[in-house]
Amino acid sequence: MQLHHVLIDTFDAKGLVYKISELFFRHNLNIQSNSEYVDREHNKFFMRSEIAGEINPKLLHEELQLLLGEKANIRIFSPLKKRIVLLVTKESHCLGDILIRYEAGELNAQILGVISNYETLKPLVDKFDIPFIHIGHENLSREAHESAIISAIQKMGEVDYIVLAKYMRILTSVFVETFPEKILNIHHSFLPAFVGANPYKQAFERGVKIIGATAHFVNNHLDEGPIITQNIINVDHSYSWKEMQHSGRDVEKIVLSSALKLVIENRVFVHANKTVIL
Amino acid sequence: MQLHHVLIDTFDAKGLVYKISELFFRHNLNIQSNSEYVDREHNKFFMRSEIAGEINPKLLHEELQLLLGEKANIRIFSPLKKRIVLLVTKESHCLGDILIRYEAGELNAQILGVISNYETLKPLVDKFDIPFIHIGHENLSREAHESAIISAIQKMGEVDYIVLAKYMRILTSVFVETFPEKILNIHHSFLPAFVGANPYKQAFERGVKIIGATAHFVNNHLDEGPIITQNIINVDHSYSWKEMQHSGRDVEKIVLSSALKLVIENRVFVHANKTVIL
Amino acid sequence: MQLHHVLIDTFDAKGLVYKISELFFRHNLNIQSNSEYVDREHNKFFMRSEIAGEINPKLLHEELQLLLGEKANIRIFSPLKKRIVLLVTKESHCLGDILIRYEAGELNAQILGVISNYETLKPLVDKFDIPFIHIGHENLSREAHESAIISAIQKMGEVDYIVLAKYMRILTSVFVETFPEKILNIHHSFLPAFVGANPYKQAFERGVKIIGATAHFVNNHLDEGPIITQNIINVDHSYSWKEMQHSGRDVEKIVLSSALKLVIENRVFVHANKTVIL
Amino acid sequence: MQLHHVLIDTFDAKGLVYKISELFFRHNLNIQSNSEYVDREHNKFFMRSEIAGEINPKLLHEELQLLLGEKANIRIFSPLKKRIVLLVTKESHCLGDILIRYEAGELNAQILGVISNYETLKPLVDKFDIPFIHIGHENLSREAHESAIISAIQKMGEVDYIVLAKYMRILTSVFVETFPEKILNIHHSFLPAFVGANPYKQAFERGVKIIGATAHFVNNHLDEGPIITQNIINVDHSYSWKEMQHSGRDVEKIVLSSALKLVIENRVFVHANKTVIL
Repeated sequence: MQLHHVLIDTFDAKGLVYKISELFFRHNLNIQSNSEYVDREHNKFFMRSEIAGEINPKLLHEELQLLLGEKANIRIFSPLKKRIVLLVTKESHCLGDILIRYEAGELNAQILGVISNYETLKPLVDKFDIPFIHIGHENLSREAHESAIISAIQKMGEVDYIVLAKYMRILTSVFVETFPEKILNIHHSFLPAFVGANPYKQAFERGVKIIGATAHFVNNHLDEGPIITQNIINVDHSYSWKEMQHSGRDVEKIVLSSALKLVIENRVFVHANKTVIL
Repeated sequence: MQLHHVLIDTFDAKGLVYKISELFFRHNLNIQSNSEYVDREHNKFFMRSEIAGEINPKLLHEELQLLLGEKANIRIFSPLKKRIVLLVTKESHCLGDILIRYEAGELNAQILGVISNYETLKPLVDKFDIPFIHIGHENLSREAHESAIISAIQKMGEVDYIVLAKYMRILTSVFVETFPEKILNIHHSFLPAFVGANPYKQAFERGVKIIGATAHFVNNHLDEGPIITQNIINVDHSYSWKEMQHSGRDVEKIVLSSALKLVIENRVFVHANKTVIL
Repeated sequence: MQLHHVLIDTFDAKGLVYKISELFFRHNLNIQSNSEYVDREHNKFFMRSEIAGEINPKLLHEELQLLLGEKANIRIFSPLKKRIVLLVTKESHCLGDILIRYEAGELNAQILGVISNYETLKPLVDKFDIPFIHIGHENLSREAHESAIISAIQKMGEVDYIVLAKYMRILTSVFVETFPEKILNIHHSFLPAFVGANPYKQAFERGVKIIGATAHFVNNHLDEGPIITQNIINVDHSYSWKEMQHSGRDVEKIVLSSALKLVIENRVFVHANKTVIL
Repeated sequence: MQLHHVLIDTFDAKGLVYKISELFFRHNLNIQSNSEYVDREHNKFFMRSEIAGEINPKLLHEELQLLLGEKANIRIFSPLKKRIVLLVTKESHCLGDILIRYEAGELNAQILGVISNYETLKPLVDKFDIPFIHIGHENLSREAHESAIISAIQKMGEVDYIVLAKYMRILTSVFVETFPEKILNIHHSFLPAFVGANPYKQAFERGVKIIGATAHFVNNHLDEGPIITQNIINVDHSYSWKEMQHSGRDVEKIVLSSALKLVIENRVFVHANKTVIL
């Protein structure tokens, strides 16, 4: 049985759980799983329900909106596959991890294409019968290059998420604003440590004993978007920065794939530049 | 503002969240925090609510029981301090960790006394003005020794939890049945690996690369009670078993104190020899 | 500059480091990296050196043997690629992780072939232009099936390591003894917890809060060979055993690939059914 | 049998291990444990040996210096207890953890005294019969306050390490330069993230999913001294910054005590603002 997911965030008020659960009960919808969280600081209420039963999404949305008021943010997701696009540069570990999961049917997603500023990863992508689109950045302004990428994405039809799987170029605000809350990035450090270029070299020079990786939504401020998942590995003095980078790949790919799984499962709310994960 | 905690577990049925939240709403109780979990395998529903407002616990209990039926297990906890007793042998790390937290006011608990089969830790306990009761096991049968401990505990009045903070003797079923679901133990391994005596020596001999600790409720089957928390540390070939034991102390004390915090905060349900933690 | 690796294990004696380093010094060999470990319990000395310079491996071996006596175990490895064979059944995560690393040139290894008792993973292996050999076990005795696999392996010429990348059949002692200390396995639990079949189901039923994976050499006793690497992830009451299995895959693949890297880099000694890793 | 520790760091050269081990061999000293590391980037050699046997430290030092040249940094440590002073403010978790270990005889150290700018922790320190010295900072310039602390420390005689066990004031360069490479600090974040005041609040506002703690030597640049140990715990959206702070205490105390153990065991080299730990 496939489930619909209902995600609600709104200002907190007495009786919200009661009102919402009453509406589901009245419609004879069975709540398979339910999670709520109240952010006391901002007085915000978050709720995610997995519901079984026949629903008319449009009607249910209208009723919930009527019940909770105009300010409530209500999202109802069908079990359809998410449509995603991957952006990469030259490194294959994150891309490869996603491709192997994809091939195994682990991801409730359809990969529409992989776009890269280099041709390095074309042979890998070709193995999986996924369109590989090379859009070189040489001799192009940043704007022109991004504009070509945006066009390529838009030709693919509706896109749910754009995954930067080690895409090593900084995006302009134009790009980011074209796909708000739809861009996932893996940053190869434990943010907010080592913002910016070559975090492993920075980590090496600082002599840290732990390195990390951070998956986050991209907003206009470089490496400052809402964090979805983080993880770490231990290193010691014997690691060169190249070895840190090499070891870091294992944590990067697991962190990015975990974040991708969370967004595909409709578990992530964004609020006040943070994520609430239910 | 201090909160009451309501814990409910019962067979799952459509509309439980609605019914319970409606009752809270009707009584003008504000739900500060709410968590539910449904165990689909056993069709069991678990709910923990933190509620603010004036309540008559006895009356609320009756109303909930009426609403949910006789089979529902309903517990309502006031913000009162938990009354706990510690059992120890000779090692001070778990005891010490609890005492330092206690002294700092971190635990919503009153330590009624520390009981030990040795006098080793009396000087430490005395520093904190907590009764230390030495009940040696020499020349006593296991039954007679435990009987003396049970008497000593019962003289302390009502007891919420008995914490085995590295108490190195196996308890008989008589003892365990006297305090059902009230006894917490720290087992110095990653259960179910290395059940029984000297797990560090067992771990050393097996050549493991990770050692762990497990806090669990004690039932009649040695080291087989419901697990509350576990954690691990990395070791390598250079560790002797004494060094594993020494390093293991850090994880033991944190795991036991974390489990103690969970039970003090009324977050732990026991079901089918497992815990549900909300 | 490519390095030779010299691995020595022998009974400990005063002056071993001096004698060995003197010999290297006399031959004008530069020690790029040196690690020693003494197991006091067994009075055993382990040393791994990475040396730069022109060497005659045969001659160096003879001189070291002469210096250290007949009982010393001396291994000298050239920078040649290790020749490996993978055995798999139906799950792709460990295989896929190795293939992606292989494709990226991360492994100093040549994959001679992938053998499976099912055809499930043939399409994945075919993408990477590696021979896939299907040897079904149906209608064959265990011995006959293994005999066919042994033949297939032996046709591939010299083999350094056989990697069981989720090969879900138990090997007989005949197979194990054919390739002593050459077979790596990934066990999907934190050994020695949950030896045997379906460890995730066992873990689920025990209600553990942490699950793990163990890479080990295979010897005649099921799941009891020397442990190379282990790692864990946290789980909670909300995981079904299928979800534990699913989440466990991430740790399985990283643990197996890490162990494979260690053996490829000639870092692993086996002694007293444990590993020493330098 | 108690061991002497010999720590050597110098520029790397061919034959160092040979020369040093030859000298030990010639003096009939048994190397119980030996570790070397070469930092290729700076061409620096580090070696730590635990040696058994009768030694004349002064003479051995001279011979090693003669052998290795003037630029070699040679330290020979007897098994004597380290003499340490603790500085604290109001929080007891790090102090308490050290006191419990101290009471259990775990630390090869003598605590000469605890100095604080508040009287809050006097009752705790008094329990352990350790001098507590209150030096309030009110109505004093930073310089005058520190000057009083320096005087108090100097009255205690020779001091090996000064441990800032949650001492919440920033030290001036005068203080730091008075005790070079002798001051250990616990910073309540995963440095270099969240340098400065109230890192938990910063972490909360950034919405991180992991918080950490860092033990480091103090130098003139706030929170930028050489890192000794780091560790982390997972948090999620449901943590307020106070809860992050509370949970962070467990990792802070373990990290600080681990770093203290490393320096007490003479395992830490400082070089290029990093540590090498052997």
